[in-house]
Amino acid sequence: MTSPTKFNLADAIALLSRTPATLDALLRGTPNIWAYSNEGKDTWNAFDIVGHLVAGERTDWMPRLRILLEHGESRPFDPFDRFAQSRESQGKSLEQLLDEFGRLRKENLTTLQTLNLQPQDLSRRGKHPSLGLVTLSQLLATWAVHDLTHLHQLSRVMAHQYRDAVGPWSVYLGVLQCAGHSAP
Amino acid sequence: MTSPTKFNLADAIALLSRTPATLDALLRGTPNIWAYSNEGKDTWNAFDIVGHLVAGERTDWMPRLRILLEHGESRPFDPFDRFAQSRESQGKSLEQLLDEFGRLRKENLTTLQTLNLQPQDLSRRGKHPSLGLVTLSQLLATWAVHDLTHLHQLSRVMAHQYRDAVGPWSVYLGVLQCAGHSAP
Repeated sequence: MTSPTKFNLADAIALLSRTPATLDALLRGTPNIWAYSNEGKDTWNAFDIVGHLVAGERTDWMPRLRILLEHGESRPFDPFDRFAQSRESQGKSLEQLLDEFGRLRKENLTTLQTLNLQPQDLSRRGKHPSLGLVTLSQLLATWAVHDLTHLHQLSRVMAHQYRDAVGPWSVYLGVLQCAGHSAP
Repeated sequence: MTSPTKFNLADAIALLSRTPATLDALLRGTPNIWAYSNEGKDTWNAFDIVGHLVAGERTDWMPRLRILLEHGESRPFDPFDRFAQSRESQGKSLEQLLDEFGRLRKENLTTLQTLNLQPQDLSRRGKHPSLGLVTLSQLLATWAVHDLTHLHQLSRVMAHQYRDAVGPWSVYLGVLQCAGHSAP
């Protein structure tokens, strides 16, 4: 299969609904090296990444969907605060953030399903504060790929901790070649 | 934390023991688009990746550890067949491969723990067929980072399916910028 497949609401929901359990399996109870080590100055560790996903559930995806449905192109989405988690995660444990992410994601997907979106709704348009016109299906596809971008980042951040420990094998390990340092 | 942290057996085992449940949460029962779509000609889909991890449990990591412990530098490891899964996965479902991976990983980690490796064992040396001298701790660190390299690949392969669907948001999604196409 060479061309990217088209958006489908059920497929997107299947992915979105699996992310909390995936992160839970990977991170709950894990030693500090995997939970709290980053890729160097001003980069994120696993704790920061889960906090960022929690913030997205609260302030980004569903609020933007509502603005799109209620106001169309007439009102731009609020900008997403990519650093909200540094305040909101303060004093919490990684396990609390994982619980919070699981609960909020479940609530958001329940709300999404009660909207009972129809195929023709997928092309409804809204306005992104810097990207301009976007469609409802692009917003939902981005929500799903945003999960994957952070799973991708997380595996890279964790692998970074053993960058030296693997010795000569580093040349065979694709995750150590990824140029994404400091980017999600 | 700017410098990669040193290898620790308990940390490596914590990571290795979590990978089967992580893949299970991400992939079990998922729609075909996430399980069977790849990044184009001769690249791997999720089914291929899990099959490759199963093959590693059977023929790579623990067999190499045994060769290292029994023969040191005098006998090189057998080369790892990176395409074994295309034969061995034939006729199986993704769910069967996930079950198999979980069972084999658990058996291998039980065996690893019964070896009761001591800190001084970590620097024992073996011979890789093409990389030359490697240590026991490098082998175990590579086993863990190999899991992460394929989780990194998997998130990229899945994201690729929505490369067009996200529209203008693609510029913000790091996983879509990763140059790893066709490499793990």
